[in-house]
Amino acid sequence: MTQPAVVLLSGGMDSAVSLAEAKSAGFAPHALSFDYGQRHREELDAARRVARAIGAVQHVVIELNLRAFGGSALTADIDVPKDRIEHGGDTHAIPVTYVPARNTIFLSVALGFAETLNACDLFIGVNAIDYSGYPDCRPEFIAAFERMANLATKMGVEGRHITLHAPLAAMGKAAIVRRGMELGVDFGDTLTCYDPIMTREGREGRAAACGHCDACILRAQGFREAGVRDPAR
Amino acid sequence: MTQPAVVLLSGGMDSAVSLAEAKSAGFAPHALSFDYGQRHREELDAARRVARAIGAVQHVVIELNLRAFGGSALTADIDVPKDRIEHGGDTHAIPVTYVPARNTIFLSVALGFAETLNACDLFIGVNAIDYSGYPDCRPEFIAAFERMANLATKMGVEGRHITLHAPLAAMGKAAIVRRGMELGVDFGDTLTCYDPIMTREGREGRAAACGHCDACILRAQGFREAGVRDPAR
Repeated sequence: MTQPAVVLLSGGMDSAVSLAEAKSAGFAPHALSFDYGQRHREELDAARRVARAIGAVQHVVIELNLRAFGGSALTADIDVPKDRIEHGGDTHAIPVTYVPARNTIFLSVALGFAETLNACDLFIGVNAIDYSGYPDCRPEFIAAFERMANLATKMGVEGRHITLHAPLAAMGKAAIVRRGMELGVDFGDTLTCYDPIMTREGREGRAAACGHCDACILRAQGFREAGVRDPAR
Repeated sequence: MTQPAVVLLSGGMDSAVSLAEAKSAGFAPHALSFDYGQRHREELDAARRVARAIGAVQHVVIELNLRAFGGSALTADIDVPKDRIEHGGDTHAIPVTYVPARNTIFLSVALGFAETLNACDLFIGVNAIDYSGYPDCRPEFIAAFERMANLATKMGVEGRHITLHAPLAAMGKAAIVRRGMELGVDFGDTLTCYDPIMTREGREGRAAACGHCDACILRAQGFREAGVRDPAR
């Protein structure tokens, strides 16, 4: 019998490849996204396209209003920084786009979902690039969360091991692009931008990426280094 | 300057005493409750009364629809068991009132809230009685969550230690009643029942406790052992 797994899906390129990895490893993936008061709901549209294209068993969207306590350029009225990386910004500082405890919160809800599915496997698309800025993307965080998860749940008490998979952990953006191509991911479905532009000029009438936020710049670098044209541009 | 702390507040007697402990320890407590699709919103009314009476700086209620993936008698259409403890039910099995990963989820959101407040202290009212049935109330879970929290956050990266306080950890219900009385908690404000009855006969028109679920029975035992009359009855 195919084992179920819960896969966090943002609609960006990383989580799309993470979902494809879960599928390719033989799991029956249940995709989980959040409507968390992020400023751009286009992310959720992208997540829906990706879940369908890759073949998730289901796609659950949980509403969670993290705006209730603000604190990030992605949820509050703080400007998303533009051209920060190319202008030599300190990429080792925690960026203002950091949402407090976001991965911890998302993984905790994924853990609850996994428990109702009797699933022992969770997937998250964090990668080597993310590690530089976000504390909750680091391998030591992933390991500590997995340890806690095994103490928090029925499965853990019953001696079944919960594994938190971070299949992109060691990859840079170019490697993620290449791996996604191998797995047949259509990057045209994904949206990585922190500040998408509402325009009919986007692909098939979708929101267009701004091209200047950290996420856009890292994505463009990844495609350039992989020698592949970004189908979403 | 008074240090801020985030205190999880359910509206039950345990979290009320936990909030009073935070206040008594000199913190400026920010109370956090969840509207998580629990069947009885009276819990939230109780939490509001308790936050006001004990003097929380603010009381934030986060909506989070855990019904989206069901799985507990507290959120789904499963009957709350009655008279289980008095009839010698196996109180060491995980009860059907267990909400998958609930404390993990609530603590994660509390961690995000703490980060926006620049608070390094979290309070949760888990206690020795809870340990028997719920995996996410055990001391080893609390310790693992604290460790993970220190790796997940800006405060952790900056070397400020996050402490997860469980001031009732070693207490049974009678000790909690006595400690609450010492701290001036009005237990008449609290509602502990898993299945409250909608009736005008409740105290001041509030919902009345059923008297037969696990929570009611443990509460009654606690007041009886402490030799105190429960003002909510």
